Amino acid sequence: MKVVVTGAAGFLGSRLADELLLNGLEKTKVTELILTDVQTPPARQDPRVTALALNLTEPTAADKLIDEKCGVVFHLAAVVSGQAEADFEFGMKANLDATRSLLEAVRHKAPTAKFVFASSVAVFGGDFPPVIDDLTCVMPQTSYGTAKAMCELLVNDYSRRGFADGRAVRLPTVSVRAGVANAAVTSFASGIIREPLNGKESICPVKKEQELWLTSPETVVKNIIHAAVVDASALGKWRAINLPGLCASVGDMVSALRSEAGDDVVSLIRFKYDEFIAKIVTSLPIRIDNSRALKLGFSVDPNFSAIVRSYMKYDLKK
Amino acid sequence: MKVVVTGAAGFLGSRLADELLLNGLEKTKVTELILTDVQTPPARQDPRVTALALNLTEPTAADKLIDEKCGVVFHLAAVVSGQAEADFEFGMKANLDATRSLLEAVRHKAPTAKFVFASSVAVFGGDFPPVIDDLTCVMPQTSYGTAKAMCELLVNDYSRRGFADGRAVRLPTVSVRAGVANAAVTSFASGIIREPLNGKESICPVKKEQELWLTSPETVVKNIIHAAVVDASALGKWRAINLPGLCASVGDMVSALRSEAGDDVVSLIRFKYDEFIAKIVTSLPIRIDNSRALKLGFSVDPNFSAIVRSYMKYDLKK
Ligand SMILES: NC(=O)c1ccc[n+]([C@@H]2O[C@H](COP(=O)([O-])OP(=O)(O)OC[C@H]3O[C@@H](n4cnc5c(N)ncnc54)[C@H](O)[C@@H]3O)[C@@H](O)[C@H]2O)c1
Ligand SMILES: NC(=O)c1ccc[n+]([C@@H]2O[C@H](COP(=O)([O-])OP(=O)(O)OC[C@H]3O[C@@H](n4cnc5c(N)ncnc54)[C@H](O)[C@@H]3O)[C@@H](O)[C@H]2O)c1
Repeated sequence: MKVVVTGAAGFLGSRLADELLLNGLEKTKVTELILTDVQTPPARQDPRVTALALNLTEPTAADKLIDEKCGVVFHLAAVVSGQAEADFEFGMKANLDATRSLLEAVRHKAPTAKFVFASSVAVFGGDFPPVIDDLTCVMPQTSYGTAKAMCELLVNDYSRRGFADGRAVRLPTVSVRAGVANAAVTSFASGIIREPLNGKESICPVKKEQELWLTSPETVVKNIIHAAVVDASALGKWRAINLPGLCASVGDMVSALRSEAGDDVVSLIRFKYDEFIAKIVTSLPIRIDNSRALKLGFSVDPNFSAIVRSYMKYDLKK
Repeated sequence: MKVVVTGAAGFLGSRLADELLLNGLEKTKVTELILTDVQTPPARQDPRVTALALNLTEPTAADKLIDEKCGVVFHLAAVVSGQAEADFEFGMKANLDATRSLLEAVRHKAPTAKFVFASSVAVFGGDFPPVIDDLTCVMPQTSYGTAKAMCELLVNDYSRRGFADGRAVRLPTVSVRAGVANAAVTSFASGIIREPLNGKESICPVKKEQELWLTSPETVVKNIIHAAVVDASALGKWRAINLPGLCASVGDMVSALRSEAGDDVVSLIRFKYDEFIAKIVTSLPIRIDNSRALKLGFSVDPNFSAIVRSYMKYDLKK
């Protein structure tokens, strides 16, 4: 199976690439893997890989990327929330228009390809019930969430019309993100674990009571792959899936860190309230009904301590 | 107040223009009225009116239409559902891209203008609860509904960012549409009343039991105007409003026609099931909670008989 990953130099894209090379698409082997990003994704010692530098906002990029042999396109390239909020045009081009071009290329060249779109819980916001379910409306309070919600609608319509076989997965906030902080407004959700574990101070811009809807990188990568495998008929009339997550408050996260790594590590967290960030974060959903996703075979992390342990075991450079 | 109406040669656009010239925007007078459509809207004997032929899918059209003095833009221009389903590109250009261009022009020239966008109950579909409320998700089953839902998201984000003061009104199916049939899949909802009253046969492509969510043209035009007047702060975090409607089955509609116009008129209705139309119509919502809209001051028709009487009184050419 020929597979394409966009945003492949990014945090999740590069993990997804590793996992696809290692374990394939559950029962299907990956025979050819095209990795693309604005800058050429890091080289890999695997003859199946082609690494391509492509800016997906350029008119010819999608056409260069997609061909008749594509079996799955994992579309992860995106401008994160903070940046899309700061620069509206830039965000809309990368997050809406680039997705539309990709869908058009799939439609004309590989309409039976699975098109897995990385959406986000940021499509929710404003008003929502205490527990979000599959019939809860989207009401994004960022331009990032707006573009994601618009793309979900396109993914659905393209699928309904047979232009593509789309699946839009709404990712919870991913923690612990390895490496360095990014411009996502939820960046602190990784920072408060990662930085102290690396001996660095970390600023938490929201209150201890703030709850978040979280997933580990391992679980979400597994779920993104599962989205390509799940049977279209099981998805029914709507191709957007709320991926499973777990709810933890910043206080819960800090406690988990304390029990896994001790008081000295936790003492590196400073609380400094940031109104701009806190306002967006409080608009995000914190509890989503996982039952449809679990029934479809998606996975969920057991608890936040397990997420901290997994980061310490696999990502922490000592 | 300078007011712009797009789709002004259309059914609702021309009624809206008449009403604006006659009664203004509730308490505000209309001092200048720009009416535009692909072809020049019919001339009106009123010095306040300028009629413009503009295809809104052309790159310069929005810029020609919007200037700094615009106080309200009523954006009604659209390609109807049947046509957008038959020609995907054409529909997306007219229904999505043209709206985006207009919003951009408003943003750069008249960001405080009210932007009233004619959306549709066709944003709903697929799965929904027995009674739709303000937190029910959209799940369009047509490309027309998809584009409308995408535009609602833009209207919201532009409003949230202060780029425009948007209001997206979800119109129920309008019946009785005067004049001739159009390519909307719900065209029969007017046809089965209008044609028999004009002595012509009419084909009903759905079952008698099929229920619909309906509004009269008078009420919906009044509500479209009210959308420009309602206080932004009363709208909260979401600028899409389910306009009030009433639920009637085709059987109810036929009974209302019988009691207002008699058996001979009703005998001109023929039932001939059309699977393509029926499939889309059964995906449309039939019951929506009116309470938020009524609280915001929008109006509702008392019953379908009143709608038939109003058509007979004002529109029926004898
Ligand atoms: N990490 C999270 O918490 C989270 C949560 C919800 C959704 N998501 C979504 O998952 C996806 C991956 O997230 P991530 O954390 O790996 O983000 P990331 O920022 O690490 O990676 C995104 C990649 O997309 C690339 N990109 C951006 N614009 C591009 C363009 N015009 N052309 C080509 N490439 C472009 C960037 O260069 C970057 O390498 C994104 O779509 C993101 O919105 C992530
Ligand atoms: N009538 C209904 O039952 C109903 C229900 C829900 C929503 N709506 C919405 O209300 C609005 C008005 O509906 P209507 O029944 O008067 O429709 P209509 O078809 O009578 O009028 C629409 C007008 O838009 C114009 N138009 C289309 N593409 C254009 C373009 N590219 N540039 C400029 N003008 C363009 C058409 O020429 C037409 O005159 C539409 O947005 C429609 O989607 C109507």
